[in-house]
Amino acid sequence: MKDLFQKAFDEGRDFLTERESYAMFAALGLDVPRHELIPDGAWLRGRLHEIKKEYPERVVLKVASPDIHHKTEIGGVAVVDNNADAIAGAFDAITTRAREAMPDARLEGALLMEYVQCEQELLVSLIDDPTFGYMLSVGKGGTLTEIFKDIAMRPAPVEKANVEAMVKSLKTYPLLKGYRGTKKADIGQIADFVTTISLLARPAQKSRQKAPAPFCRGFEVVELEINPLAITKDGRVLPIDSILRFRKTRPEEPDIAGKSSAPNEKNLDQLFHPKTIALIGASDTTEKMGGSILKLLIESGAAKVFPVNPKRKELMGLKAYKSISEIPGPIDLAVLAIPAKFTLPVVTECAEAGVKVAIVISGGFGETGTEGKKIEAQMAASARKTGMRIIGPNCMGVYFEPTKFSTFFLSPEKTEIPHCDVNNFTVLSQSGAVCVQMVELTRNVGIRGIVSYGNMIDVDVADLMAYFDRDSGTDVIGIYIEGLTDGAKFISAAKAMHKPVIITKGGKSRAGSAATVSHTGAIAGDYDIAKAVFKSTGLVEAETLEDFADYAKAFSFLHGRRPKGHRLGVISNAGGLAVLAADATEGTCLKMAKYCKATIEAIKAETGGLVIVSNPTDLTAGISDEGFAKAAAHILDDENVDALILIPGIQPRPMREDAIVDEIIRLYNRYDKPMAVTITPTEKRLAMFNRLEAARVPHYDTPERAVRALAAFVELLNGVENGAAQRSSL
Amino acid sequence: MKDLFQKAFDEGRDFLTERESYAMFAALGLDVPRHELIPDGAWLRGRLHEIKKEYPERVVLKVASPDIHHKTEIGGVAVVDNNADAIAGAFDAITTRAREAMPDARLEGALLMEYVQCEQELLVSLIDDPTFGYMLSVGKGGTLTEIFKDIAMRPAPVEKANVEAMVKSLKTYPLLKGYRGTKKADIGQIADFVTTISLLARPAQKSRQKAPAPFCRGFEVVELEINPLAITKDGRVLPIDSILRFRKTRPEEPDIAGKSSAPNEKNLDQLFHPKTIALIGASDTTEKMGGSILKLLIESGAAKVFPVNPKRKELMGLKAYKSISEIPGPIDLAVLAIPAKFTLPVVTECAEAGVKVAIVISGGFGETGTEGKKIEAQMAASARKTGMRIIGPNCMGVYFEPTKFSTFFLSPEKTEIPHCDVNNFTVLSQSGAVCVQMVELTRNVGIRGIVSYGNMIDVDVADLMAYFDRDSGTDVIGIYIEGLTDGAKFISAAKAMHKPVIITKGGKSRAGSAATVSHTGAIAGDYDIAKAVFKSTGLVEAETLEDFADYAKAFSFLHGRRPKGHRLGVISNAGGLAVLAADATEGTCLKMAKYCKATIEAIKAETGGLVIVSNPTDLTAGISDEGFAKAAAHILDDENVDALILIPGIQPRPMREDAIVDEIIRLYNRYDKPMAVTITPTEKRLAMFNRLEAARVPHYDTPERAVRALAAFVELLNGVENGAAQRSSL
Repeated sequence: MKDLFQKAFDEGRDFLTERESYAMFAALGLDVPRHELIPDGAWLRGRLHEIKKEYPERVVLKVASPDIHHKTEIGGVAVVDNNADAIAGAFDAITTRAREAMPDARLEGALLMEYVQCEQELLVSLIDDPTFGYMLSVGKGGTLTEIFKDIAMRPAPVEKANVEAMVKSLKTYPLLKGYRGTKKADIGQIADFVTTISLLARPAQKSRQKAPAPFCRGFEVVELEINPLAITKDGRVLPIDSILRFRKTRPEEPDIAGKSSAPNEKNLDQLFHPKTIALIGASDTTEKMGGSILKLLIESGAAKVFPVNPKRKELMGLKAYKSISEIPGPIDLAVLAIPAKFTLPVVTECAEAGVKVAIVISGGFGETGTEGKKIEAQMAASARKTGMRIIGPNCMGVYFEPTKFSTFFLSPEKTEIPHCDVNNFTVLSQSGAVCVQMVELTRNVGIRGIVSYGNMIDVDVADLMAYFDRDSGTDVIGIYIEGLTDGAKFISAAKAMHKPVIITKGGKSRAGSAATVSHTGAIAGDYDIAKAVFKSTGLVEAETLEDFADYAKAFSFLHGRRPKGHRLGVISNAGGLAVLAADATEGTCLKMAKYCKATIEAIKAETGGLVIVSNPTDLTAGISDEGFAKAAAHILDDENVDALILIPGIQPRPMREDAIVDEIIRLYNRYDKPMAVTITPTEKRLAMFNRLEAARVPHYDTPERAVRALAAFVELLNGVENGAAQRSSL
Repeated sequence: MKDLFQKAFDEGRDFLTERESYAMFAALGLDVPRHELIPDGAWLRGRLHEIKKEYPERVVLKVASPDIHHKTEIGGVAVVDNNADAIAGAFDAITTRAREAMPDARLEGALLMEYVQCEQELLVSLIDDPTFGYMLSVGKGGTLTEIFKDIAMRPAPVEKANVEAMVKSLKTYPLLKGYRGTKKADIGQIADFVTTISLLARPAQKSRQKAPAPFCRGFEVVELEINPLAITKDGRVLPIDSILRFRKTRPEEPDIAGKSSAPNEKNLDQLFHPKTIALIGASDTTEKMGGSILKLLIESGAAKVFPVNPKRKELMGLKAYKSISEIPGPIDLAVLAIPAKFTLPVVTECAEAGVKVAIVISGGFGETGTEGKKIEAQMAASARKTGMRIIGPNCMGVYFEPTKFSTFFLSPEKTEIPHCDVNNFTVLSQSGAVCVQMVELTRNVGIRGIVSYGNMIDVDVADLMAYFDRDSGTDVIGIYIEGLTDGAKFISAAKAMHKPVIITKGGKSRAGSAATVSHTGAIAGDYDIAKAVFKSTGLVEAETLEDFADYAKAFSFLHGRRPKGHRLGVISNAGGLAVLAADATEGTCLKMAKYCKATIEAIKAETGGLVIVSNPTDLTAGISDEGFAKAAAHILDDENVDALILIPGIQPRPMREDAIVDEIIRLYNRYDKPMAVTITPTEKRLAMFNRLEAARVPHYDTPERAVRALAAFVELLNGVENGAAQRSSL
């Protein structure tokens, strides 16, 4: 058994035959269909008597050859009754057809198998994703697999409880629960099977541990797909068809960029709290990048700034230096604002001068092709020699609110980084332009930190996540990523987070980059895999920039509030808007609350009995600001309500615009249940907006956006499963 | 055959038995499985010899009784080989089990049927929806029906081409096309079957025509569901199981509100262009509704205004009248701003005084319950006597931009109806508050008309759609509806529209209101049915108010531009934002264009060869405004590009903010391909926004919203199918 992969490898194969796969499953302790190899007709005739006794009423014969993959297509499969004539006839027929169709194929005979009566068909797969490593999938198997794409996926290895949750999340789970005459399947037994299969994954940390199963020592699975995994009519869990591709375990590759699977926070304190900064490529005109940044650094005043420019003696009133080595004393941070072609030697110089961390602003490296990637590797190697960290290249660097330290060199007439009374939201973005867009869209949320981290040749998003998870002023982290170089490290950082993370991914193409031959590859592209990673590590995905901004506002403003459940109240003086809010809960975790009788009576009394009290609650146009607030308080007092959306629509009177804002802010401060407000965004109402935002009440232009954002917040807090439980700082 | 329904009715049933259903299908000329009734064992024995010859290898026996619906559950179904012993045994077994399980059931014997080998299973249903009348569905049948809800629906009757389009829109269509070994089904044959079934629907105009099929004269189908409709291995299309409920055709009901199935535009000209207006309940203080409206009417100056208030001699400088009958000369429009309890007699008075159309503002009628509904019916009856039309009650009435005529009585410190240079967008809303929200969200689009139409006791949304379809100044119509009283009229108005209609529905609960026993009822709630109606009549559904506003801007601004196809170009100086735009095309009708070689070469030349030209096109931060515009022009010149999204991200330089706006406006005016712009919404960039909006260039805060809106516009123009073809005015 130990030689299963070796034998196939020696035969020049990178896959197991069906029989070998059964052997492997059996070696893992799993049940497989009864089967045997029939080498030839003579041998078969000698066995027919036993076959009759040992096999059930019907049997399957499949031509056995390591060279024939699509057996059905060449007529190489037959299902026949278990009697001598039928079996012998089928054997001759399929082997003859195979010989005719593929005369050069090595023919080992035919595989005889019991015919399995399926109650349900599942798909189970394990694929080694180039970014995230082994991903395990469970889903609907059979011919409908690719049509309905009903699969659940998460990084392997997995616990049994994970698998049960995955199975229960399937749309076709009702079929397994027993539905319209189908038998109830044993979910525990399915989960045991899948958990065992997941042992074939190397641990998520690629190449760091040996393969766990003895029979594949020296080899590793590239992809395994079992489709169908049969849940049989008599309750067995049996792999029927499978594909398994493997490769020789790669020797530990030299780790070019010095990456480790644990986040590395070394020197990041000096990145955000530098005492001394050298700006290489400093200029005295803000028309140039080196001038813009110099001005920003001087204005911040948080650190001593040393401009470097060999052609100048003084810049903006500061002594200029010819090179970094000329600067007296230690340098915490070097900012490189020089063209790409001059960058490598300067990075080396910085490293040798003992700089703790360098920000390389310029683009023109890895994003332009192989040549650029080579230079990046050299920069990383130089830095590693002395332990210097690098941010970038191809980035805008850092902004940190407490010290106003900033390298964000956009001219102030284009944009300014917004500043609020409370600043607890940190943005990490691979793209500079998306970073700016995110900061603008969350302008009233309160930005604490920004890192535009670019090509990630050293400091990557996982390092920054870990750092800001410990940063006491950051309550919520927002991330934009396109690609990742070390998916395993990202998973490890994501799992360890205590603070809520909102993440948007660019590059959502569903085309898989991995060359897989299985269904799973056709179903799950790179984006689906990334989605599965986000979900399973408890990150909150915002699919659009709109959602990103809306969630950021809810999470930052509502920080510290804990809903007890998913039951939502909606209150309005405008029936139609209340209806749209209730509609928008569909498909979210929020359920419309059922008010207590006392609540209903209290609201009725408040409104003179004129209003039919239900949820959503339409107090009608006749309600005053005071009446609205009193009714809202009754709903917030109701123990059947976990969260509230307030929609003071524009109505003629008696509601007063200023007064209702006062009332809402009072309620918001009095109750700690999560709330969101929808205010129709008229020009006349800008003042209402601003007052609500100053009071950090989340408000949205439309009922639907308020519901989506509040749902994301409630889901975060309630997502005990899938790793979100550890978000203890909420 | 004529007596099929009558016989069942006489037996006290409202449904057909399986055998009766087969008889009905056969009468429609449809193929059915070979079957016959076996009344008893003796009869069976006499037939066995013929059965062996006439039936295939396997047969099905089902217990036959009008009282037993769930035959499988009581063991009343058997599938056996076609031989004497097996059939006789099965007959005894199932009839014995039926007698034991349901001793009181009338037992007619057993139905013998050929066993049908299904290649595919479909579901076909026809349900009489209380609002929209007959809705026909086609979808995936079998046990997965309710799990995947893969059905297409449209109002019946249907053309064969409609059915083919429905089948092709199914997710499971690949199974019918021939997929992974399944046989290709004959879509034409399926469509013929379904089209024939749709003849069982009375025409959409309820109760206006007689039932088409002779055998159900005097009766009509309540619901019919065939599941499965088998596509057999030998290529037949056979109904296997079905449910059919019917009722006696109702006598023509007295048409309480005088509704007709054709839109009624009578007197609507006087609603929007009144020469004389009586305001009943006029006041001299804008603190009161009657004062606000009086002020608005006087300010408009478009009509002669007669305030009515028995307690006053003069109001706001105008002579006041005691009642409408005192006013000299004919009155085009009466506006009733008086409490609900006084409304009915005044409506009658107005009708008798020859008023052409009345707006009843007050609420407190049908929306409060049965009593209110009664009064509404009386108002409608009064009005009908003299041909007076009524808008409302429970509404805010009308605004019409050309004359500034308005009854929208919101105080100007709360909101003002926006006014633009071009005003071509008309809003029709059932809810006043949603109306205000929609108007505010589309404030820069240019509003021509607004009707808050309330409870629709006379003038309804269909009448208004028809009116504004002919209104020369309206290019685009936006609608909010919650419920409808006459769905057939709505369908007829929607089908006849020449202008694009954006529609948002409140009340999206998927719980079906119709008490159906079939799967279709479980799958398709009221909202799904409304969605199917919108789609099949070519209306564009906006699922949220956000989409509503975004689509309104695109449709109004882009009015007159015709894309030739779905191929989108994306151009930006910010890679990340371009990537997000490309991502957002997934799931829309837009496909990323492949540029011609010449375009790529031209852009390369323009950018000095530094940029890798692909689509999305990232010109990088180094591009100038001029370079950006030149590259965009090359893309717009490309015959492989039908539409363009421009994303000038915030970058340090050389792009100048003012100059890029100039360039974009120039491109927009020079090319008639549809375009949309994304501008990061910074405070600094407000001026850019305003200039783009003044030039009627659609712009959006995020790339994703720009793509969604442009996709909706392109889809509208290209949606030749489903009734959108007649949108000839675009």
